[in-house]
Amino acid sequence: MRFTLGEKIELKRGLKDVYIDRSKVSFIDGKQGMLIYQGYNIHDLAEKSTFEETIYLLLYGKLPTQEELNKFETELRSNREIPHSVIEIINMIKEAHPMDVLRTAISALSAHDPEVKDNSIEATLRKGIRLTAQAPTIVAAHARILEGKAPIAGDPELNQAANFLYTLFGVKPDPEDAKVMDMDFILHAEHGINASAFAARVAASTDADLHSAIVAGIATLKGPKHGGAAESVTKMAMEIGEEDKASEYVTKTLKDGGRIMGFGHRVYKTIDPRSIHLRDQAKLVAERKGQPKWFQILSKVAEVMKPYEAKGVCVNVDFWTGVVYQLLDIPEKFYISIFSMGRIPGWTVQVMEQFDNNMLLRPMLEYTGSIDLEYVPIGLRK
Amino acid sequence: MRFTLGEKIELKRGLKDVYIDRSKVSFIDGKQGMLIYQGYNIHDLAEKSTFEETIYLLLYGKLPTQEELNKFETELRSNREIPHSVIEIINMIKEAHPMDVLRTAISALSAHDPEVKDNSIEATLRKGIRLTAQAPTIVAAHARILEGKAPIAGDPELNQAANFLYTLFGVKPDPEDAKVMDMDFILHAEHGINASAFAARVAASTDADLHSAIVAGIATLKGPKHGGAAESVTKMAMEIGEEDKASEYVTKTLKDGGRIMGFGHRVYKTIDPRSIHLRDQAKLVAERKGQPKWFQILSKVAEVMKPYEAKGVCVNVDFWTGVVYQLLDIPEKFYISIFSMGRIPGWTVQVMEQFDNNMLLRPMLEYTGSIDLEYVPIGLRK
Repeated sequence: MRFTLGEKIELKRGLKDVYIDRSKVSFIDGKQGMLIYQGYNIHDLAEKSTFEETIYLLLYGKLPTQEELNKFETELRSNREIPHSVIEIINMIKEAHPMDVLRTAISALSAHDPEVKDNSIEATLRKGIRLTAQAPTIVAAHARILEGKAPIAGDPELNQAANFLYTLFGVKPDPEDAKVMDMDFILHAEHGINASAFAARVAASTDADLHSAIVAGIATLKGPKHGGAAESVTKMAMEIGEEDKASEYVTKTLKDGGRIMGFGHRVYKTIDPRSIHLRDQAKLVAERKGQPKWFQILSKVAEVMKPYEAKGVCVNVDFWTGVVYQLLDIPEKFYISIFSMGRIPGWTVQVMEQFDNNMLLRPMLEYTGSIDLEYVPIGLRK
Repeated sequence: MRFTLGEKIELKRGLKDVYIDRSKVSFIDGKQGMLIYQGYNIHDLAEKSTFEETIYLLLYGKLPTQEELNKFETELRSNREIPHSVIEIINMIKEAHPMDVLRTAISALSAHDPEVKDNSIEATLRKGIRLTAQAPTIVAAHARILEGKAPIAGDPELNQAANFLYTLFGVKPDPEDAKVMDMDFILHAEHGINASAFAARVAASTDADLHSAIVAGIATLKGPKHGGAAESVTKMAMEIGEEDKASEYVTKTLKDGGRIMGFGHRVYKTIDPRSIHLRDQAKLVAERKGQPKWFQILSKVAEVMKPYEAKGVCVNVDFWTGVVYQLLDIPEKFYISIFSMGRIPGWTVQVMEQFDNNMLLRPMLEYTGSIDLEYVPIGLRK
């Protein structure tokens, strides 16, 4: 016998267009290509703000005064260090994917956080600040260990973006490079209830703590359909190899039923507003460094893909991110980790919002199997 | 300006009664109190099956022949060992909550799994078998390290349940205790798309790998509203202290607006079928060990709560689980970890099912903030 419910079940596969809650954190208008963090347009934030100010905005819901920002930056900078045992753990699993290492190290940091069990909004905010400060230390330490170099201590004179590049490469970064990194962090800080933020909210809905929720977010962001696209775009650019082969590559790939990476989005049906800034930065950095090749290849790809805009298949945030990272000499395999560490403020504020008006996230599955198979003793089974 | 959508948004808070997909893995009839794994009633499995056979049923969708079961048991037993470096990691973070340790250790195991990147159904199944075999090794090692004892190697002569008790306590378990543990594992092996399985599916929906999905599941199960109830029931029993204080405790707690732990469930509105077996086991073990106290206290609590059954507030699986673990001398703080390690087969098969017909799980949030706040330079902010 199969089970049948009295009424027809409406399946919401992928939870497409299902609204699960209200939020004041961010807004995406997929038709107009608009992204808002806590009331502010992403264009203003990308052009006028800093990552530190944007984190403050996300976590506190308002832009800081100079005094508030100073205090906040001090708090962030004083929390960058990670325990030596976590460095040891990174070293022990260094050959794993950087996202596996980041996930494990963040998970291990729960053993050292004095407020791990405290799920109050205030403690969750403080833990979010600590994790935001600690995550780049993990990523930079891992990258250096992989190159056989010792991790280096941060420089409290440097902001989050500059300090990340410094601890990654061991030299004080060009201020223009640091500014590009800073803008990249701003653009990646929050993006509504995409799969990783959703996973963090599902964890938080059981009253699991922030470390658990962020670990669930990182685990989810790892998927190639989510955080992995920037790396794939870079690989595609390398595969194309030179500008005048881009057109043929795109045409052939699409003809063969393949996909061009860095295009299309569940919500945006027009150009992703973040991609505009990343494209501009990619162009500037390529010119400044005298390495126009990758930018030119991707520009050609974008040009050939232009007709698909009418169908809602547009450049997304990942399309230009990869070439920016490549021009900053960041190893490909760390692209998703950088995305993750920039997203921690967004995950944190969404967990705070979830805690504030919590309800267990527990959907249903329509069962299509049998319900009355007879348990046959093992000797009689065929 | 605030953003308003043209149409009224219907919120699905908690995703209550929202069906997100079809499944052949398990079925819960919350009105009749029925639980089915792959077509078989949980009562048959609890009484006639073994954990190994149940894992096989969940993963392969059929009960094994003797030959298939023998081969499967060999595979499980040969995968119990975990790398020394993971033992070291457990030792380094031993003071953390056992769920934080399990989450970190499973995450770290990704560094050692030869098929970590392979998301094929076949490789995912093999990884699920490995993680099912490895998880008890992590939990037992952690418990022993906490007591200042060295972890001990498993005994390939013992099944999963007996070996867990052996590696936990260092002595071969009483076969009756092992049988109780075995039934407990059967009853916890799978339970539909509860929050932890859902988090595992959200991770898998991005094509993240099984280790990531299981880590998301563990992170989510940690929450007191999900996996933490058995521990809370035990704490409640201890607080009550003796049988003739149970009635007063329940009455007073409810009068003060408190909650009696181990009652009520999002899906079950009648008695949880798993609790029947756990109650029977609790009674038998209590008698056998000559320690009737906790069973008697909880029986009294259940009796006083009886009138609430009419309102759908019934004993759930966690109510009797705690006393069973307590009678087996398992430290309270490890209760959720034991739940987790028993659930790995269920999470694995749900991830396999998600991969088989995958679609990104990405819902929406209704934005209730502003969309056009003016970016005021920092010096002019108040």
